[in-house]
This record gives sequence, C-alpha cells and structure tokens, in this order.
Amino acid sequence: MNLKEMVGIKAASYVKDGMTVGLGTGSTAYYMIEELGRRVKEENLDIVGVPTSFASKEQAEALGIIIKDIDAVTHIDLTIDGADEISQTFHGIKGGGAALLFEKIVATYSKEVIWIVDDSKMVEKLGKFPLPVEVVPYGQEQLFRLFQEKGYNPTFRMETEDQLRKTDSGHSIIDLNLDVIEDPIALALELDQTVGVVEHGLFNNMVNTVIIGEAHGPKVIENIR
Amino acid sequence: MNLKEMVGIKAASYVKDGMTVGLGTGSTAYYMIEELGRRVKEENLDIVGVPTSFASKEQAEALGIIIKDIDAVTHIDLTIDGADEISQTFHGIKGGGAALLFEKIVATYSKEVIWIVDDSKMVEKLGKFPLPVEVVPYGQEQLFRLFQEKGYNPTFRMETEDQLRKTDSGHSIIDLNLDVIEDPIALALELDQTVGVVEHGLFNNMVNTVIIGEAHGPKVIENIR
Repeated sequence: MNLKEMVGIKAASYVKDGMTVGLGTGSTAYYMIEELGRRVKEENLDIVGVPTSFASKEQAEALGIIIKDIDAVTHIDLTIDGADEISQTFHGIKGGGAALLFEKIVATYSKEVIWIVDDSKMVEKLGKFPLPVEVVPYGQEQLFRLFQEKGYNPTFRMETEDQLRKTDSGHSIIDLNLDVIEDPIALALELDQTVGVVEHGLFNNMVNTVIIGEAHGPKVIENIR
Repeated sequence: MNLKEMVGIKAASYVKDGMTVGLGTGSTAYYMIEELGRRVKEENLDIVGVPTSFASKEQAEALGIIIKDIDAVTHIDLTIDGADEISQTFHGIKGGGAALLFEKIVATYSKEVIWIVDDSKMVEKLGKFPLPVEVVPYGQEQLFRLFQEKGYNPTFRMETEDQLRKTDSGHSIIDLNLDVIEDPIALALELDQTVGVVEHGLFNNMVNTVIIGEAHGPKVIENIR
C-alpha cells in the first residue's frame, strides 16, 4: 500500500453513518473516495457526497455513493481534501488542480475539514508553490500588470501554448510566483479586496485536522483553534 | 432639454483630445455618449472609448467612436458613468443595471471618475437602494442563507418569474435590502472576504467628480481626497 492510499483510507475512517461529506479532488482524495465506496458497499455506510469537481463526482457515482449538489444539502458535516502546501500555523495553498473556487466554497460550509497530504507538502512558510488566483477574464491583462508592478511574478495558467486554462466557472487563473509568503493573512485580505479577483488559493486556518503520509504510518495533527 | 441630457452634455465637456474614456451604462450615460459622438463628428475629437456594457458599445460604435476592449488599452484617462445612490462622503451604490462588475473594473483602472446623476440619487446614508452582490452560482443557495442569517434581507435578481438574472459573466445577483448602511467601508470589507462573492455594488470613495442634474443647471461637486 502506498502512502497516498494509506492516508486516504485513514481519512475515510473519520466518516460516520448519516454524514454529508465534501469530496475533495486529486490523487490522495482519489483513494479516500475509493475507500468510502468500499464502506458504502461492504458496510452499508449511509452517506451523501458533495463533490468539488466533475472528476470526483464521476468516481463517487461509479462507486455507488449518493451525490448531491452543494445547493441541495442543508449542511456539510466533514470535507476531506488534499492541499498543495500547509504551513506550521495551518494556513494552506490550494488550487494546483484549478478547482480552488469550488473547494473553498465547500470548505466554507463544512463543519469540519480534513486535509490529506504527503510529508513534502508540510512547509515552514508558504509560497514555494505558486499561489493560484482565479480572476474575471474582463480586465485580466490590467490585473496581470498590477500584479507585475507589485512584484508578484504573475504567470497565466495555460491549457495549451496559446490558450488560457479556464476554470469550471469560465474564469482564468493567474499564478503568483512569490517564493515566500511572509504574511498569508495580509495577502489574503489584499487579494480579497482586489477588483477582478474571484477567489485565491490561500486557505488560511480553514483546516481542523491534517493527516500526513509517512513511511511508518499516517500521522495526524490537530489544529486546536 | 431634460435634466439627464443636460448633465450628459456637461460631463462630455470634460473629455479632451487624445483621451481614453470609460463609457458608462444607463439613461444618463446615454446622453453623454450621444454628445461624445457629436463632438467626434463635428469637432474631430480624437478619443478611444472603453465600454462597460454591450449596450454602450453598440451605441458608441454607431456614432463612430473608436472602441477598444479594457485589455487592449494601457490606461483609461476618465470614466463617466451613472450611479444609483451617492452619500455625502462620496460612497456609492451601483449595479441596478447588473453591470457592476465591469463598471467597477473600468473605474478601478481609471485615473479620474465622473458620476452623472439626478438629485434623487444624492442621499444622507446609503441603503434605500438594494445593494447588488454578484455571486458564483455554485453554492449560491448557501450564500443566500448566510445573508438571511445576517439579517440582510436578500432577494435573488430574477429575469423571469422562475429564471435567475445572469450577468454578462454568467454570475447571479443577490440584492441585499438593507434600508440603511451605517458603515459602507466595513460592509465592503465583509463582502470582499465572503467566499462566493465575485463583486458588490459598493463603490466607496471611487469618484472624483459628481455632476447633478438640477432645474437651474448642472451642479458640480468635487470629492477632494
């Protein structure tokens, strides 16, 4: 069993009968959804899944997990998702897979959030991973110049050599190559207030539990807030 | 000549040769664009227009005004637009026409902003006019409930009885029926930080000059910042 599979299965053990579960996206979340499918089939686990992407929706449905849209549920008990970087103060960067907007919306309405990662994602300070910013296409070149002037080293996320990557909402993604983010709270506030920014990949203090894949077994860290 | 025509013509007199001009949307902006068209034709006024809506684009093009997209210009010298409410401290509400996102983006990148209104738009405090909030469709029912819990009296903007109004960007609009906004700065900050909110209709301290239609002639107020 590889490390991703190990943390995926561990995370799925947090899911109890009757829960509405936010289903993350990515290679580690894949194993978590597989394990939930096994429990639904073999243990008659009674859950509703709220997917954060088309890929997770398809996988869960194929496994026989009941799926509902975010707007068809009254609440989400628990969301299990991956992350691209997690700092020692439980701030995170997400959006490498371009699903940050839906992932953040689902996390916002979740009572509990678990992130499942491998050890390489745990960092002293955020920023080595480029920070994704989801932007409105109208005026995006002006915004790009603004980020350049601020020294944020922006790059447009590309689909092909000359075609921009578009999110499920039809927005563009500008990655900020910052190297180090000294103050994630201040940067989040600045981006929140920037006209043309729909959402950004800083998930500050939104996680309750981190499960890390390590050679001798999954390590669980609680964010005591 | 009606009052709207009077302020529209007055506002157009601020446009000088060589300027790139943001063209607002609405019944007063209509007369401003008409006057710019006349000056282009009769005075050989040399300008580039950046429209904030399809309607303004069509009108300006028919008048022979050169039109460029927001991302095809390096800067905007002056934007002339309407407003739904303006407070005595130069905060404003816009978005009655559902074009607030593009209008705010154009205003953001403009060196100068002029608002043209009739006297009824000048208020002691903002809030009688419902505050438009442009939101991501994914999760919009959760966001609506959140606004309800906060006592913001939200209503979805409708196109027909059972179809939501969609903006040019494909987003929905939730109008907040607040009656009085005691602190527009604090509310703007709160909405900026709310996940799922793309943009809101609070244009706080974004205007330089207000031209008000009054019976004895247009009244000009400068926002000295």
